[in-house]
Amino acid sequence: MTIQFWFEFASTYSYPAAMRIEPLAAAHGVPIDWRPFLLGPIFASQGWNDSPFNLYPAKGHYMWRDLERRCNGYGLPLLRPSRFPRSGLLPARVALAAGGEPWLPAFVRSVYHANFAEDRNISERGVVAELLDKLGLPAAQILARSESEMAKEGLRAQAEEAQRLGIFGAPSFIVGGELFWGDDRLEDALGWHARYAG
Amino acid sequence: MTIQFWFEFASTYSYPAAMRIEPLAAAHGVPIDWRPFLLGPIFASQGWNDSPFNLYPAKGHYMWRDLERRCNGYGLPLLRPSRFPRSGLLPARVALAAGGEPWLPAFVRSVYHANFAEDRNISERGVVAELLDKLGLPAAQILARSESEMAKEGLRAQAEEAQRLGIFGAPSFIVGGELFWGDDRLEDALGWHARYAG
Repeated sequence: MTIQFWFEFASTYSYPAAMRIEPLAAAHGVPIDWRPFLLGPIFASQGWNDSPFNLYPAKGHYMWRDLERRCNGYGLPLLRPSRFPRSGLLPARVALAAGGEPWLPAFVRSVYHANFAEDRNISERGVVAELLDKLGLPAAQILARSESEMAKEGLRAQAEEAQRLGIFGAPSFIVGGELFWGDDRLEDALGWHARYAG
Repeated sequence: MTIQFWFEFASTYSYPAAMRIEPLAAAHGVPIDWRPFLLGPIFASQGWNDSPFNLYPAKGHYMWRDLERRCNGYGLPLLRPSRFPRSGLLPARVALAAGGEPWLPAFVRSVYHANFAEDRNISERGVVAELLDKLGLPAAQILARSESEMAKEGLRAQAEEAQRLGIFGAPSFIVGGELFWGDDRLEDALGWHARYAG
C-alpha cells in the first residue's frame, strides 16, 4: 500500500508537505505515489476563478502568517511570492511526464523552493529548464516530452481522477481509500497506514 | 496572558476544541478567555448564506469524515447532527451573559455534547433549560438574563470584535496577538504561549 501525494505547485501548504514527505514516508516504510495535479478546474467547478486565499482576504491574511509559523517550525525558508498563485501548469506537466523516474522528488522540491523560497516564476520555461539543468537532467528533452499531447491529456485525466476521489484542495493524501487534506494531516495519513495497512 | 477561545456552537471543529481546551490550558498554566460568537455575520460578509461545508459538498463530505477520525482519536463521541448547522444563537447568548461565572465551561461542553453527540436541538429553549437544570443552575433566571437587550447587544459587539481581530472561522484562538484557527491548532496556540509569554 502506498501513500498517494496529490500536490499542486501553486499551493502554499503543498510546499512544506513536498519538502517533508520523503523522509517521513521512508521512516514509515510507505512508498510515495506522486500525483501532480491542477486545482484550477476543481476551484472553477466550485465557482472560484482565483485562489480562495485571494477571494477571502481574512483567510488569506491568516494563511500567510500560519504558513510562516509552520515553515519556521520545520526549518524551511519562506519568501512570500510576489505573485500568488503562480500557474503550476508547466512544472506539473513535467512532473507528470516524469512518471516514476528517480529524479521526480528532487525536481518537485526544486520547483517548490523556487516558488516559495526564491520568488521565481515557475511558469516560465527558462526557469524550469534551469531547475532541470541544476539536477543534471536533459532539460530540452524533458520539456519537449512535457509538451506532448499525451502529457497534456495525462494532466487533464489526473484532475478528473482527483475530483472523482473527492479531492477539493492541496495537498491531499490518500492511504487505503482514506482522504487526508492539508500539510497538517501528513502525519495522520502515515499513521493511518501504520494502523490499517498491517 | 490568556488564551482567547473563540467558539461558535454550530461549528463542528469547535466541538473537540471545547471538550479539550480546559485540561490542556491548565497543563500550560494559561487562563482561558471564553469568547462565544456567531459566524453567521462573518460568513454573510463573505457572500455565504450557509455553512461552507454545505455550499462546497466535497469539502463537507471530507469534513465529516475527518471530524469522525479526530473525535475517535480523542475518545469523543460523535453523532452527526440530523440538521447542520444548528443555530447557536440561544446558547451563545447564555454563554455571553454568563461572563466569567464558574459554570460557563461545563455549560459550553454540555451544549456541544447535546448538538454533536446526542443530536439535540440546541436552538430550543426547552433543551437549553434542561442542560442548565442538569448543571444545578437556575435555568429560568439565566434564560431571562440571556434575552436582555444587553446580552443581545453584547453578542453583536462580540461578532464585530471577532471580525476586527481577523477571525473568519471557528474555533479560533488568540495568544499574545497571534491568531490560530482550527481545533488542530490548539496545541500550537498553547505552545506559542509557552515560547513567547515567558
